[in-house]
Amino acid sequence: MRATNLPVMTQKEDPKDAQVASHRLLTRAGFIRKQAAGLYVYLPFGWDMHRKIETIIREEMNRSGGVEVKLPVITPGELWRQSGRWQTMGPEMMRMTDRHSIEFALGPTHEESITWLASTYLQSYKQLPINLYQIGTKYRDEIRPRYGLIRCREFVMKDAYSFHADETSLDETYSEMRDCYRRIFERCGLKTLPVEADSGNMGGSGSEEFMVPSEIGEETLLLCEDETNCKYRSNVEKTSLIPGKAYPAGTSEPLADVETPNQKTIEEVASHLQKSAEQFIKTVIYTTDLEVIVAFLPGDRNLSETKLKLHIEGANFDMASETVIRAVTGARPGFAGPVRLKIEHKGKLILEDEKEVKTVKYLFDKNLQGRSGLIGGANKDDFHTIGLQEGRDFTPEQFYDLAEAEEGDICPKCNKSKLKATRGIEVGHIFKLGYKYSKAMQLSVLDVNGKPMTPIMGCYGIGVGRTIATIVEQNHDDKGIVWPEAVSPYLVYLIGMGKNPEEKKVISEIYEKLTESGISVFFDDRDERAGVKFNDADLVGFPYQVIAGKNFLESGRLELKNRRTQEKSEVSLAELISRFGK
Amino acid sequence: MRATNLPVMTQKEDPKDAQVASHRLLTRAGFIRKQAAGLYVYLPFGWDMHRKIETIIREEMNRSGGVEVKLPVITPGELWRQSGRWQTMGPEMMRMTDRHSIEFALGPTHEESITWLASTYLQSYKQLPINLYQIGTKYRDEIRPRYGLIRCREFVMKDAYSFHADETSLDETYSEMRDCYRRIFERCGLKTLPVEADSGNMGGSGSEEFMVPSEIGEETLLLCEDETNCKYRSNVEKTSLIPGKAYPAGTSEPLADVETPNQKTIEEVASHLQKSAEQFIKTVIYTTDLEVIVAFLPGDRNLSETKLKLHIEGANFDMASETVIRAVTGARPGFAGPVRLKIEHKGKLILEDEKEVKTVKYLFDKNLQGRSGLIGGANKDDFHTIGLQEGRDFTPEQFYDLAEAEEGDICPKCNKSKLKATRGIEVGHIFKLGYKYSKAMQLSVLDVNGKPMTPIMGCYGIGVGRTIATIVEQNHDDKGIVWPEAVSPYLVYLIGMGKNPEEKKVISEIYEKLTESGISVFFDDRDERAGVKFNDADLVGFPYQVIAGKNFLESGRLELKNRRTQEKSEVSLAELISRFGK
Repeated sequence: MRATNLPVMTQKEDPKDAQVASHRLLTRAGFIRKQAAGLYVYLPFGWDMHRKIETIIREEMNRSGGVEVKLPVITPGELWRQSGRWQTMGPEMMRMTDRHSIEFALGPTHEESITWLASTYLQSYKQLPINLYQIGTKYRDEIRPRYGLIRCREFVMKDAYSFHADETSLDETYSEMRDCYRRIFERCGLKTLPVEADSGNMGGSGSEEFMVPSEIGEETLLLCEDETNCKYRSNVEKTSLIPGKAYPAGTSEPLADVETPNQKTIEEVASHLQKSAEQFIKTVIYTTDLEVIVAFLPGDRNLSETKLKLHIEGANFDMASETVIRAVTGARPGFAGPVRLKIEHKGKLILEDEKEVKTVKYLFDKNLQGRSGLIGGANKDDFHTIGLQEGRDFTPEQFYDLAEAEEGDICPKCNKSKLKATRGIEVGHIFKLGYKYSKAMQLSVLDVNGKPMTPIMGCYGIGVGRTIATIVEQNHDDKGIVWPEAVSPYLVYLIGMGKNPEEKKVISEIYEKLTESGISVFFDDRDERAGVKFNDADLVGFPYQVIAGKNFLESGRLELKNRRTQEKSEVSLAELISRFGK
Repeated sequence: MRATNLPVMTQKEDPKDAQVASHRLLTRAGFIRKQAAGLYVYLPFGWDMHRKIETIIREEMNRSGGVEVKLPVITPGELWRQSGRWQTMGPEMMRMTDRHSIEFALGPTHEESITWLASTYLQSYKQLPINLYQIGTKYRDEIRPRYGLIRCREFVMKDAYSFHADETSLDETYSEMRDCYRRIFERCGLKTLPVEADSGNMGGSGSEEFMVPSEIGEETLLLCEDETNCKYRSNVEKTSLIPGKAYPAGTSEPLADVETPNQKTIEEVASHLQKSAEQFIKTVIYTTDLEVIVAFLPGDRNLSETKLKLHIEGANFDMASETVIRAVTGARPGFAGPVRLKIEHKGKLILEDEKEVKTVKYLFDKNLQGRSGLIGGANKDDFHTIGLQEGRDFTPEQFYDLAEAEEGDICPKCNKSKLKATRGIEVGHIFKLGYKYSKAMQLSVLDVNGKPMTPIMGCYGIGVGRTIATIVEQNHDDKGIVWPEAVSPYLVYLIGMGKNPEEKKVISEIYEKLTESGISVFFDDRDERAGVKFNDADLVGFPYQVIAGKNFLESGRLELKNRRTQEKSEVSLAELISRFGK
C-alpha cells in the first residue's frame, strides 16, 4: 500500500484530554480520532487493525466451537422488561422510543436478545450445548468516558453466550473459553493476568477476568505473594477477607453514650476519643425497591458492595435517603449504630409519603463476631456509644463476609501468604451466568425424559477497542507505538529517499518486488522531508522499517530497522525477500 | 463444517408477515430471524453470507482507490444542526439525548460525520481526491418496515464519500464508482439495471441508481423501448416529460364560473361538465418553512415532488394546511385555480396566528403553455372556472417541468421512442452531492494558490442486506434458494445416508477428504431422516449437493446434484475432488 493511496493521518499535537499513552499515541499515529466524548472514528490504520483482531477472535472462537450470529444493536424494551433489567440497568443504557411509541434500548450487552434467539430455536437437550457469539457494536452511556478506547461509549465487543443441559457441560465450555481467551490474547501479543474470582471461598457462580496490569487500570487486584504455588488472583471487590492482623477481642466494658457533636466520620470521632478506627463499627445503609439493608463492619474497612449484593433481593440498589436513615435509626446520618434501632431485623418499614413497605435487614461482617469494647453511632443525634459488645448489646443471627480485603491481608486460598495489590484493565471476562436469564425469559427445552427443563448459561466477552488500547499500553516507547507483528496493519514501513524521478522509480520497484513476494509493505511515497517520514514510521509503529537511501542507489544496500529494538542492519533486496517473503 | 457444530436453523412455517420470496425463504432457510418489526437477527448461514458480500464490496472498493474507515453509529446532533438536517430529516431519524442532555441521532446516513472527519484531516488540494468509505450499521425508523431485509430499520450499508478539488475529478471518481458497483453486483451474481437519472435534460447533479427489476419493487422506472440504441432508463420521479400525445392548444373561449357544489376532484368535475381530465388545470399546494408553493399542471398528470423540490428553498416540505389554502386562494380545498388568487407571485403571506411570513410562488408546468379553453378551480367555494386561457387569464413568468412522465410518453433522451414502465428495488446509489455538505459544514482546503476553496463531494451507497434479499428474489425456485457460487456460505451440501457406525465413519471420511482438498463443504451429519436433509439442502440452496447413499457404500459412486438445474450425475470421490478442489 502506498501513502498516496492510503493517507497517513498522523498529527503532531497530543489530544488535549489524553491522560494515557494509548489515547495519546493512537490519536497521534492516526489510528483513531475523537468525534465526541467517548465516540471515536477509526481511521484507516486503526480500522485495519481492528479487523485483524476481529479475525483472530473469530478464528479462535470457531476453533472452540463458537457459532457466529449477528443481533441487532437496537434491542426491544420488551425483552429487558422480561429479564427485569429495564428497571435495573440505570442511565448507562440508552433508551429510546420509536415512532410507534415502542420502547427500545441501544444494547449495552445482549443476554436478553440471545436468550430470546435461543428460545426461538432450542427445543431439545440434544441441541445442547451451543455457544452463540457475535462481534458487534455496543453502547454504554458512560457518565465520564475517558482514556480514549479504554472507556468509551460506543465500541465493538465479541460477546458469546452458551446454553447447557447441566453444570458439567457449562464447566466444559467455560474451561474451553478460558483456553480460547488465552490463545486470543497471546496471538494479539498482549500479556494478560487471568483473575479467578472464584478460587477463594466466595462460592456462587464462576467468573474470570482477563486483566492487563496497568497503573491506569480502574480495577484493583489482589494477588497472593506466593506466585509459584498459590497463584491466587482476585478482583478486590470479590476477594474473601482473612485479615492480615486479627482484630482484638477487646474487654467487656459498660455501655455509655458520649457526646460527639457534629462528628460524623469515624476519623473525627476516633480522634476525639483517642481510639483507633479498628475499634469502631462502621454502619452503611442502602435501599433496594424491596429492602433497607444496614451493613455493620469494622471501622477501618471499606464495604464491598459486590459482596453485599450477594445478599440482597430487590432491584435499584442505592444509598439510603436521609428519610430512610432517620426512620430506621432515629438519628440523622452519621450517628447510626447497632443499638436502639427503631425496627427489628426483618421488620417492615412503612414509608408513608412514598406508600412503600420495605423489609429492614441488618447484616454484620464476620470480623465483628465475639468482639467487645467497640464504638458505634448511638442512633441519637450527636452521640456515639462506647463499650459495645457483640452477643450482649447486639446479637446477629448470622455473620457475613462484607468488608473489602486489602494489601497485607492473608490470601484466602493458601491461607498463608499475604496479598499484594496491583491495578488492571479488564479486556475479557468469562462468566457462569447460571439460570438468571434462562429462567426469567422462560427458555425451556425437553430433557431426556421429554420433560421441560431450563438450560444453564455462560457468557464470555472481549472488548476489541480496549484490546487495541492495552496492546499500546504494553507496547510503546517515547517515539511511538511498537505493534506486535500479528496485529500490525503492515509488517514493513518502506521509506524511499530518492529525489529525482529516476531514483523514485527505482524505489517504487523495491516496493513492488516486496509486495509481489507477499510481504505486507506500507510505502511512504509522500513528498515529505525524510525526517517527517522517519518520525511517522516510529510513531505508527509497524515492526520493521526499510530505508532505501543513498546506499541503495549506489550499492544496492537497504537499511533494515527493527522498530522494537531499534537495531539497524544493512541488507540486500534479495535478503529482505528471503527473510520476510512467503 | 458439520451440522452438529454449525446448526441448521431451518423452519417449516413461512413467517406470517412474509409477502415476498426473499423474506419467506431467508427465514425458512435459517438465514435470518425477525426480532421486532424491521429488526432481524442474522443466523449462522446468513451472517457468513453477509460477511462474504462485505468482502466482495471491500475488495472492489479498495481496487477503486477507496479508503476504509469506521464512523460511530451514534452521531452528534451538533453536526446535523450544522448541515440543517436536524430539522429536515423527519421521524425516520431516531434521535436521543445522553445523560448530559446532549443530542445525538442514530446515523441513518453519514454525510455530516464524514464531512466533519474530512475537515479534521484535509488541509490542501494536494490531499484530493480522497474517497473514504465504511461498512457499518445504519438505522432508519421506517414507518412501515416490510419485505424482510428489503425495507428494514437496522441494516448494514457500505457508504462512501469522495472529496474533490473540481468537478472533473468528481466525474472521474463517479465514473470509477459506477464501474466498481457493476463489478460488485456482477460478483454477487446479481443482475442490476443502472438507472441514469441525468441522461435526460434534467440538468443538476448526476445520480445513478442500481436497480434490481422486480414486481415487488417500490420504485417505478421508465425505460426507453429502444434498448439497443437509446438505452435511457430513469426513475419515474426524475424522468423529463415529453408527452406521448401532444396537449391540444384549444380554442379561445370566454371565462365563466360554473357551480360545482362539493365536486372537489377533477374526476367529479370532469364527469359533471363532460370534459376530459387533460383539459383541466390541476392545482397542488405545498409549504416549506419559507414558502408557499402552488403548482399548476395538466389535470391528467401526477405532480413529481422530486422535480418540484428542485425549485424550492426552504425546509420542512409538506402539504399546505387548509388555513394556508384559504389565505392564498380564498376558497376551501378543492376549488383552487390560477385566477383570482389573493396574493401575487412572490408576494408575502402573513400567517398571523403563526407569526410567520412566507413567500408565495406560483409554478406552472410547461404543458400548460399556450393553451386555451382550460378548466380550473375558481378560488371560490363550490365553483370552477371554464375557458381559462394562458397568456390572457394567467401569465407565468416561466414554465417548469413538474408533471410526472408515464408509460407511453416520449423518451426524453432519443426524443423518438416511447417509454415503458417497470418496477425495481434500489440496491445501490451513486450520487454527485456537489457542495451541499462541504459548504454547510465549512470544509475548506488551500488551493494551488494558497487560497481557501471548498471541495466538491460525491457519495456512493450499497445496502448489504438488501443485496442479499435481491439475490434471493432473482435466484430461487419452489423448493428454496439457489445461491450464486460467489456468495453461497458453502459450495457443497453433503448428505450421508449411512445408518450404522461403520457407514457413518466412511461418510465422515468423505467429508474430511473433500475439506482437505480445499472444497467448502457443509456436512449434514444430523440424525435426521433423509427426506428432511434433502428438503433442507434444497431450501438453504448451496450450489451443489453430494449424496453418499447406498451406491457409495457398495460401489464408491456419489450422487452430485446441481441445485440450480437439478441435474444429477454419478461421480467418484476423486472426480469430485478434481472438479472442485484447489
